[in-house]
Amino acid sequence: MSRPPIYNGFLHLTPNHHSHGYWRTSEGQVQHGYKDLDPYIDVVRTLERGKLDALFIADVVGVYDLEYGDGKGTIRAGSQFPENDPATIVSALGYVTEHLGLAITSNIIQDHPFSFARKLSSLDHYTDGRIAWNIVTSYLSNGFRNFGYEDIVSHDERYAWAQEYLDVTYKLWEHSWEDGAVVRDAESGVYFDADKIHTIDHRGERYSVQGPHIVEPSPQRTPVLFQAGNSPAGRAFAVRNAEVTFLPSFTPESARKDIATLQADARSIGRDPSTLKTLVQLSTVIGSTEEEARRKQQHLRDNIDFGGLVGFYSGGSGIDFTSIDPETPLSVLRDQVQLGEHVRSIFRSIVDADLGHGRELTWREYLIDHALLPGKLAGTPEQIADHVQTWVDAGVDGFNVVPITTLGWWDEWVDHVVPVLQERGLAQTEYTEGTLREKLFGRGDRLPASHHATTVGSGIG
Amino acid sequence: MSRPPIYNGFLHLTPNHHSHGYWRTSEGQVQHGYKDLDPYIDVVRTLERGKLDALFIADVVGVYDLEYGDGKGTIRAGSQFPENDPATIVSALGYVTEHLGLAITSNIIQDHPFSFARKLSSLDHYTDGRIAWNIVTSYLSNGFRNFGYEDIVSHDERYAWAQEYLDVTYKLWEHSWEDGAVVRDAESGVYFDADKIHTIDHRGERYSVQGPHIVEPSPQRTPVLFQAGNSPAGRAFAVRNAEVTFLPSFTPESARKDIATLQADARSIGRDPSTLKTLVQLSTVIGSTEEEARRKQQHLRDNIDFGGLVGFYSGGSGIDFTSIDPETPLSVLRDQVQLGEHVRSIFRSIVDADLGHGRELTWREYLIDHALLPGKLAGTPEQIADHVQTWVDAGVDGFNVVPITTLGWWDEWVDHVVPVLQERGLAQTEYTEGTLREKLFGRGDRLPASHHATTVGSGIG
Repeated sequence: MSRPPIYNGFLHLTPNHHSHGYWRTSEGQVQHGYKDLDPYIDVVRTLERGKLDALFIADVVGVYDLEYGDGKGTIRAGSQFPENDPATIVSALGYVTEHLGLAITSNIIQDHPFSFARKLSSLDHYTDGRIAWNIVTSYLSNGFRNFGYEDIVSHDERYAWAQEYLDVTYKLWEHSWEDGAVVRDAESGVYFDADKIHTIDHRGERYSVQGPHIVEPSPQRTPVLFQAGNSPAGRAFAVRNAEVTFLPSFTPESARKDIATLQADARSIGRDPSTLKTLVQLSTVIGSTEEEARRKQQHLRDNIDFGGLVGFYSGGSGIDFTSIDPETPLSVLRDQVQLGEHVRSIFRSIVDADLGHGRELTWREYLIDHALLPGKLAGTPEQIADHVQTWVDAGVDGFNVVPITTLGWWDEWVDHVVPVLQERGLAQTEYTEGTLREKLFGRGDRLPASHHATTVGSGIG
Repeated sequence: MSRPPIYNGFLHLTPNHHSHGYWRTSEGQVQHGYKDLDPYIDVVRTLERGKLDALFIADVVGVYDLEYGDGKGTIRAGSQFPENDPATIVSALGYVTEHLGLAITSNIIQDHPFSFARKLSSLDHYTDGRIAWNIVTSYLSNGFRNFGYEDIVSHDERYAWAQEYLDVTYKLWEHSWEDGAVVRDAESGVYFDADKIHTIDHRGERYSVQGPHIVEPSPQRTPVLFQAGNSPAGRAFAVRNAEVTFLPSFTPESARKDIATLQADARSIGRDPSTLKTLVQLSTVIGSTEEEARRKQQHLRDNIDFGGLVGFYSGGSGIDFTSIDPETPLSVLRDQVQLGEHVRSIFRSIVDADLGHGRELTWREYLIDHALLPGKLAGTPEQIADHVQTWVDAGVDGFNVVPITTLGWWDEWVDHVVPVLQERGLAQTEYTEGTLREKLFGRGDRLPASHHATTVGSGIG
């Protein structure tokens, strides 16, 4: 029997993750605790009370819009700026929880893979196997410039880079230590069987790593691998590496198609498609009546900081939108703006879509009412459960639940929505035992045999 | 009035830090918990109960003796192998303590300075300003080979590298954000005053970093800086950068001279010498009688794994000692072994010293009875306090207390030695309030004005 849908609680360690400017409202002020430890202790305890599967910590390693407008839009608004380091908070969050998975985002440009593999192995030990890694390649030129590059590296090159990065970590996690290397025999004085611990001697395009891995194999060895790949190169990467992937789908219908494509791609490279789970993002405004929910949604939208949002959108798309008049009709905007290749398809599909307003939207209306993630769905817990059901029926395995404010909001979800989901069999009522991988897939602690990681160890040992 | 001596509890996240092979004894088996979180939670609670100043987590990023003997000596013995990542455990240890400083070792070869600065700023937030960084440059060739280098980089070049690394972090910590940059004014919608947050635009020999720093200034901004520099280049580096430095002194008399030299060096570059504290290592076997202490010391020495010790000593010195007959007299050994420049002086001074045995020692006796750190001083709490007093009289500011086993041992120190030290005014009985820097120096949270870090920000902002 398959498990109920997966739910991750999504957040950034930042003042405004997606609700740009909401910190100015009385409800949003809770977000001022973004740089402290205690508010996140509360968050994970709440998530565990609601039997959510994992906390998902998103991240960026630079400022969105340093090269757009006056370069200060997102800094001024505190929009995904600053960003504390996700990995540093994990051991504390693991200490106060027992079952909750802890998924951290880490960019291939920010750590050397030898250090990174060691970091995640250590964390997987400290949390008894509850770590996941959301693999990202930066889309922010400031991110690259913080790490010695002149500018952003091309999209396809980033994926080649990411594959080598992953291969180094696979060699360290899966192949440097054979099973049975930990002996601890007081009689012979052998702590580790050195014949079962190997250098990896990786020599590749970007990395040269001798090894061995200097951390004992952790409960999961390789952390659970999350990744979002929408482009052809990204999708190929996801199918090869990810265990949980985020769909770009806007509707359950498109999700159904996207899942079929992913599964066919997986089969074509010899991977068991049931080892790849799919998630979509879900952001709700919860009301005891639909009217209340809509009122709260309007309040959220009324308080959006448009400057922060535009800076965020510019950095995310690689297009300078800062000088666009907010009242520009979308069709005019589409002809004005030079769209880069990597955003053309997404942007066009949105602009071309029937947005159900019966009239053309302005740039401001579009950004606030449609491009904005938080609170996209306003409704009662029952309406939200209905919505969840449509995605589940389309074959989606779970949800990244994106809150309105990353701190303080979770009680609403856990107290009001989770019980309805549980009643309908749409959310787990108890955790299963074991590591995060075992909880998500029910097939043991280790990567499945059909995963690419098992094949990169030839020549080691 | 000056504060009582500083005491740090020293450990590695490893099965055997210096008591190689002691894990085979019944007392040593506690060390098997080295890769879990809970035993360290106990350690920091004990250290805080004893009002120690900080936990000091040492580290290496490679295997000591991969190129010596069969390359497996320290792996087999579990001697400083494996090594979990110190930074990953800090937030949990900070969560369960209130005052204890948390000093982590991090090597300049393991992290990019942009990521490293972000990591330490985040941790300094989560611990309310209790973070210190022990700055090291690796002496292990395997360490360099794990990070893309063909071999160890020369000693002097490592210090030049380290200075650039530090200068990048100083720019991020001290100069990227002006005081008053955090505005959080709901009225105007300004979270941060973007005019007070600056890119650093560092372009140097090894690093090119745009910035700005993507973490708000933490309570201390720059963590308290620990560093051990014994060579001329190392000492110059320490005088310029360190706030706490480890003396190489074997006796209180030599410490007195070493401190005078350091202070003169500090004055010569315009630095207030009172802003540089000096520590020595102290490792004791504690008995209720001297006889009991000596018996325990002998038990420790009888259980040393000589293979692990020799591998460790070879990697640490850069000299292959693995094929030396343990019974070789020291004078013969001195003529046999080609000593590298960087160990010649230390090694010679030890071999040449009168070790008080009235006869020449063998290599085995020397390593176990003299080179070995743990349990060097065996005595009653009162004798240990007498010993501490001689160092304090020589002007030493404090001690890195090195335990016999890094787990489980601390109750002995805290329950038996600390009360005697406190009674004699040789240890604090209460913590003072404030950040770690304030606790150690009593002059505020920030680096002093005469520190080099204050001068590297010209051109920023």
